[in-house]
Amino acid sequence: MVLTIDIGNTRIKGAVFEKNTVLEFFVFDKKDLEKKIEKILEKFEKVTDLVVASVGNVGKEAFLNFNNDVKVCFLSNEDHFPFKNNYATPKTLGIDRMVLASGATLQYPNQNRLVVDAGTCITYDFVDENDNYLGGAISPGLRLRYEALHNYTAKLPLLMFEEPKSYIGNSTPESMHSGVVNGFVYEIDGFIDQYRAHYSNFIIILTGGDALFLAKRLKNTIFANSNFLLESLNQTFQYKINND
Amino acid sequence: MVLTIDIGNTRIKGAVFEKNTVLEFFVFDKKDLEKKIEKILEKFEKVTDLVVASVGNVGKEAFLNFNNDVKVCFLSNEDHFPFKNNYATPKTLGIDRMVLASGATLQYPNQNRLVVDAGTCITYDFVDENDNYLGGAISPGLRLRYEALHNYTAKLPLLMFEEPKSYIGNSTPESMHSGVVNGFVYEIDGFIDQYRAHYSNFIIILTGGDALFLAKRLKNTIFANSNFLLESLNQTFQYKINND
Repeated sequence: MVLTIDIGNTRIKGAVFEKNTVLEFFVFDKKDLEKKIEKILEKFEKVTDLVVASVGNVGKEAFLNFNNDVKVCFLSNEDHFPFKNNYATPKTLGIDRMVLASGATLQYPNQNRLVVDAGTCITYDFVDENDNYLGGAISPGLRLRYEALHNYTAKLPLLMFEEPKSYIGNSTPESMHSGVVNGFVYEIDGFIDQYRAHYSNFIIILTGGDALFLAKRLKNTIFANSNFLLESLNQTFQYKINND
Repeated sequence: MVLTIDIGNTRIKGAVFEKNTVLEFFVFDKKDLEKKIEKILEKFEKVTDLVVASVGNVGKEAFLNFNNDVKVCFLSNEDHFPFKNNYATPKTLGIDRMVLASGATLQYPNQNRLVVDAGTCITYDFVDENDNYLGGAISPGLRLRYEALHNYTAKLPLLMFEEPKSYIGNSTPESMHSGVVNGFVYEIDGFIDQYRAHYSNFIIILTGGDALFLAKRLKNTIFANSNFLLESLNQTFQYKINND
């Protein structure tokens, strides 16, 4: 049994896997990290491995004090991945993006894969049908756009996400919802169109906190799976065991 | 002779007009406001009116101490504009957006007009062919997106704008440039497509600090004019004199 942990810029997500089946999902704050993991390990006594990907400022050292029976695998850029990495700066490639690319490679063989992860940031990662990782893009996620509008202007309020009523916002809040949410959707559709214009035999995987909302709005048909990163962590770990 | 001043969220821009002709443009920091304006008034002695639009935190009181011969017109939402305002929250409609809508109405009569101002924020403002202002959208500008990526994540650097080499960034900086710059372009094209799908007889005016860069990149044909806000200030002032 494997416990996978995804430490993002905003929060921590986890899942317990029995082979490829998820037994339970978890979401918690960084401050609760150790306490929550202890509880999960108590509940799922058969967990033998803890697999972690961290892009936040939580390092390997946070995982040294658990129950001795659990082996900790803190994934890094030095690990083996199932794709050929053509990134010019492999040491700064976020481990979340590597794990997403890895999951896409393992789960969807012999096709061009674009993974769009709509979380704190939107990351775009592309692995071609010959398993070459070519890179992608990073832009601010939905929440960051709302925060930026408030924090860098004198007069705009801080709003929580709301589905815009129209592309023409007829009030200041509606203008902000339209700009942030429609802009976000147009951006993702624009990137997908660009990839589609250059590649056929193509699968798009949409994940992250805003995946389910987005899936309804994009003009492009995509495969939405909010838990793709946690699933990819589990698959990357199985791959590592079989290939190290 | 008229001196128009546009106080944005980041910097101050100005222009001296002799009727509809620009004699000189200026850009300066907020801290230099009074000193710079004094200098401009010394150089252009025939300036009779100072017309100001401020969305930053510089208020009317900053303009009380100039040479007595100059009349100050600090535009506000209470002023007369040449369009019918259908905004549900007219008091929170930024004066910059009102002036842009006003300029579009006066300069391009009897057609549907969309003004896209790509500055600190991107604002979209729409005035239909019957001179109804319907609203629009607000989203973070290019610079804000770079700042947000750095300030809200643990590991991404603060980058200055650079034209991305490809939509597939093959390094962390290239991924950020692609996400920010291509995302920005896809968003604006997406909004324009949406308006075009609903309205014909349509003009798009693109302005703001990033207008000239954008004009080359958008798939939609637009009319780019970096100084449209300053020109609109001058025209709005002429309109006000003739109609008050």
